[in-house]
Amino acid sequence: MPYAAPVADIRFLLDKVLGYDRLAATETFAEAGADVTEAILGELGRLCDGVLAPLNRAGDLTPARLENGVVRTSPGFKDGYKAIAEGGWLGISATPEHGGMGLPQTLNTAMNEMMSGANLALQLCPLLSQGQIEALEHHASDALKDLYLPKLISGEWTGTMNLTEPQAGSDVGALRTKAEDNGDGTFSVTGQKIFITWGDHDVAENVCHLVLARLPDGVAGTKGISLFLVPKLIPDAAGKPGERNSLRVVSLEHKLGIHGSPTCVMSFEGAKGWMVGKPNGGMAAMFTMMNNARLGVGAQGIGVAEAAYQHALAYAQERKQGRTPQGDTAIIDHADVRRMLAVMKAETFAARAIALDCGLAIDMGRATGKDSWKARAALLTPIAKAHGTDIGCEVSSMGVQVHGGMGFIEETGAAQYFRDARITPIYEGTNGIQAMDLVARKMMDGGEAASRLLQEVEDAAEGARATLPDLAEKVWEAAETMREAVEWLVGQEMNERFAGATAFLRAFARVLGAHYHLKAALADPEGPRARLARVFITRILPEHESLLVQARAGAAQLYDLSIEDLQTA
Amino acid sequence: MPYAAPVADIRFLLDKVLGYDRLAATETFAEAGADVTEAILGELGRLCDGVLAPLNRAGDLTPARLENGVVRTSPGFKDGYKAIAEGGWLGISATPEHGGMGLPQTLNTAMNEMMSGANLALQLCPLLSQGQIEALEHHASDALKDLYLPKLISGEWTGTMNLTEPQAGSDVGALRTKAEDNGDGTFSVTGQKIFITWGDHDVAENVCHLVLARLPDGVAGTKGISLFLVPKLIPDAAGKPGERNSLRVVSLEHKLGIHGSPTCVMSFEGAKGWMVGKPNGGMAAMFTMMNNARLGVGAQGIGVAEAAYQHALAYAQERKQGRTPQGDTAIIDHADVRRMLAVMKAETFAARAIALDCGLAIDMGRATGKDSWKARAALLTPIAKAHGTDIGCEVSSMGVQVHGGMGFIEETGAAQYFRDARITPIYEGTNGIQAMDLVARKMMDGGEAASRLLQEVEDAAEGARATLPDLAEKVWEAAETMREAVEWLVGQEMNERFAGATAFLRAFARVLGAHYHLKAALADPEGPRARLARVFITRILPEHESLLVQARAGAAQLYDLSIEDLQTA
Repeated sequence: MPYAAPVADIRFLLDKVLGYDRLAATETFAEAGADVTEAILGELGRLCDGVLAPLNRAGDLTPARLENGVVRTSPGFKDGYKAIAEGGWLGISATPEHGGMGLPQTLNTAMNEMMSGANLALQLCPLLSQGQIEALEHHASDALKDLYLPKLISGEWTGTMNLTEPQAGSDVGALRTKAEDNGDGTFSVTGQKIFITWGDHDVAENVCHLVLARLPDGVAGTKGISLFLVPKLIPDAAGKPGERNSLRVVSLEHKLGIHGSPTCVMSFEGAKGWMVGKPNGGMAAMFTMMNNARLGVGAQGIGVAEAAYQHALAYAQERKQGRTPQGDTAIIDHADVRRMLAVMKAETFAARAIALDCGLAIDMGRATGKDSWKARAALLTPIAKAHGTDIGCEVSSMGVQVHGGMGFIEETGAAQYFRDARITPIYEGTNGIQAMDLVARKMMDGGEAASRLLQEVEDAAEGARATLPDLAEKVWEAAETMREAVEWLVGQEMNERFAGATAFLRAFARVLGAHYHLKAALADPEGPRARLARVFITRILPEHESLLVQARAGAAQLYDLSIEDLQTA
Repeated sequence: MPYAAPVADIRFLLDKVLGYDRLAATETFAEAGADVTEAILGELGRLCDGVLAPLNRAGDLTPARLENGVVRTSPGFKDGYKAIAEGGWLGISATPEHGGMGLPQTLNTAMNEMMSGANLALQLCPLLSQGQIEALEHHASDALKDLYLPKLISGEWTGTMNLTEPQAGSDVGALRTKAEDNGDGTFSVTGQKIFITWGDHDVAENVCHLVLARLPDGVAGTKGISLFLVPKLIPDAAGKPGERNSLRVVSLEHKLGIHGSPTCVMSFEGAKGWMVGKPNGGMAAMFTMMNNARLGVGAQGIGVAEAAYQHALAYAQERKQGRTPQGDTAIIDHADVRRMLAVMKAETFAARAIALDCGLAIDMGRATGKDSWKARAALLTPIAKAHGTDIGCEVSSMGVQVHGGMGFIEETGAAQYFRDARITPIYEGTNGIQAMDLVARKMMDGGEAASRLLQEVEDAAEGARATLPDLAEKVWEAAETMREAVEWLVGQEMNERFAGATAFLRAFARVLGAHYHLKAALADPEGPRARLARVFITRILPEHESLLVQARAGAAQLYDLSIEDLQTA
């Protein structure tokens, strides 16, 4: 399916809205100047449009399959993966010490979005490797780093995350997989893991599993969990894959979407593993991996939204239906179709801005060491994940609708985006869990980071008043309303917060989206950015008010409705 | 998949909320008393739960297929259809003269919902037959009626609607299929039609196509279209199917959902047909068929919502995840899951009330002949269709979310509801077209019917103040806000209305939903209905305000955003 990576949109956001140039002014990211960024985005755009997108449909039609215990991937995926690896893209944000490019998470986020728009099923493979690289960089011993990182960064090997077990989904602490010390620096890992994305494949020579397991003396719950690196083929000291480890793919899942991504049930049967981090310190290491993966999944949602938008826009221009005095009319001229397309574009732009700004905060936190940047990144991460993926689902559903009856026919392709996107609000922590994270952990500072961000929104709105008075006023008022909601929230018991968490997160995303749109409009006050901002700020932003009513509705009314009540029919 | 038709919910709505007993007080529906209604709903519930629902999964897994020009339906569908036909359900609302039960559309709507919840793909077959029965009753010659109606009502034959052509979707007037007079009372119909639901199958002995086509002197557009009855097998005078007509299934579509429903590309190659209604009067006849089919499709959305809700509710009670001091917790005890389930149930209830009240208005219009009832039915029809189907999609998506990772695995079944529901906002007039119908044709009375309905909402709220003052106040205020929006709307140019039509329709549905919930609460002020109403009125109803902001945002900002702007990236 034709796809053009939104390089210009991303560059506009980086340059005109988000202040990306602050990064190149730091020592850490001195090399991420405008020229490098332009070159990187351009190169990535060509890879996405020319190599990855053309494989997207084949992945859907010919899912990965299990043959004699080995996973065979979709037609062309091996070449697609190879192109990603050869471009060095696995290591875009990895440290140069082991072969990485050392570029900012902001660019990585842009890359994740663009690749996901081109081919979500295939992009999952590098996304998982990235997470593993980061976990090893932060927590593994030097010996493990030296052995594994060059292979993962070059893409010769790939990485997976093994968290979930049948009885342990969102509640990771309930896992039962065991690890026993072999006394020689290795451990024997035994247990079954489910939903292992790219758990096996034929696109690279080795698969390295990061597996959460419990040592014999590990206490119940998350505090007794350790992390192990368990390769499919055990490498020798020189990094040559040798003996086959005692692990296998039991089966592949038959899924609603991302058919090209093999989702494995894995069985570890006394498999040899190496501990990463400290005994019983597995969750900390895993959180490193999951945290940036959350932003990566947010970017996935945005990528699919962008692709679905482009696809619908093209159809709406081609498809004739109805007449005006000027002759046959393409459906794009009908007000409701125009509305859908405008909303799709405005929503995608806003969600992208949130994700890129989150990446920027991560990078600035790293480059400056300042807690304020780190708190901002922590606050934005659940919003970027949940909102980006919700928008992925909503925009791809509108993409189906724009196509009318053709949207329901699989050949058209709109339905694939709709199916593929649906996983993103679920994995890497459901969006409900992201919302709980936002209203609980991310408000442990009494709402300080949130207030600081909202102050920034208000200040920017003040600055826009001279040029765009009506839009600026709406954004300023929304930020003020949101600030009051934050103040209310931090005074509530935890379950009161949880009962409104999803609506609170979405309201926050509405205000942020309006903020970025306003800044975009200010950079282009007579141009398309301002016209798009007007659609967002006048049509979409007002939703924050009813969302905040929901956010404050409280837990009592939900629990008053008993299970018996819910069963009443 | 286990399913229990919501007989008790429907009876509660009929008896305590909607004033269904007014029907039995009319001459036309004197037989639709409480006992008959109870018996009918009970019988239907058993059919849906025991026969149709158990076939739902097989329909998804083993789609209908085309073999040597003949469609073979999914396993068990023939038996399922036979059970529907033998129950006499095809003729539930057909006139007794040709074997129908003559029961109200209200009950028919309840039946359509229940069957759709059990098995949407299979239910489409009787739904189409019902539409054809109605079109023939109103427009066909006595000879055609006598020949076809008994067969359609008994279910020996089935009916289809042939409107769409590749270049003529929402714009039916662009069709090119031709009909030539054979001079013997028959016509030769030639052309290709697409998206023909149940266009061929093996569940009954004949398939009767109602085909829109243009006579040689038919003008361009909808005014030159006539309607023809074109049977697959041409019956003799005694109604015995004989010679095969010159029509064939070219191919079946590969669809996102409703796999058990064969969607055919049909080719009519000089096929013999009989005119229904007058020359060039095809659209009028077709509208008869489509109008009630729109309510039927709204009921489909609600049925899928109910099924998805039940499925998610069961999982949420079984699935343990996390702990409280009392021990392992089922996910239903987590606030955000409880919220999703409460919203799913409250939304389904509200959409069902709108659809049943629409059915009631159709029946009262027929029984009393009063224009006020007819106008109410006309007003409610697009709302029932668009909102019922939107809720079908939203609730089935929440059903996936409640299941977490398991929701994305096809075996779980949640994904099937999500896929199946997605067609309902598209067919029988896209929801965008429903919204345009609401703000244009249905407001040609200057908003009189809408105002009358909103007055009823306000009066009911006044009556509820003594018992439920806070809820009553919210509903009263919302109705007043909606009334102002209607007054604003009727003063606008048409494209201004269209630009906000979708939001306007949804806002109206929010107010109506709150109205029915309030009435339900009043009938059960200390019970589950009141607790559910509180969730709807305090959490969901407030959305009407931001929707009305969208409704009033106007067309200019959408068209200011040029096609070039939409392409900017």
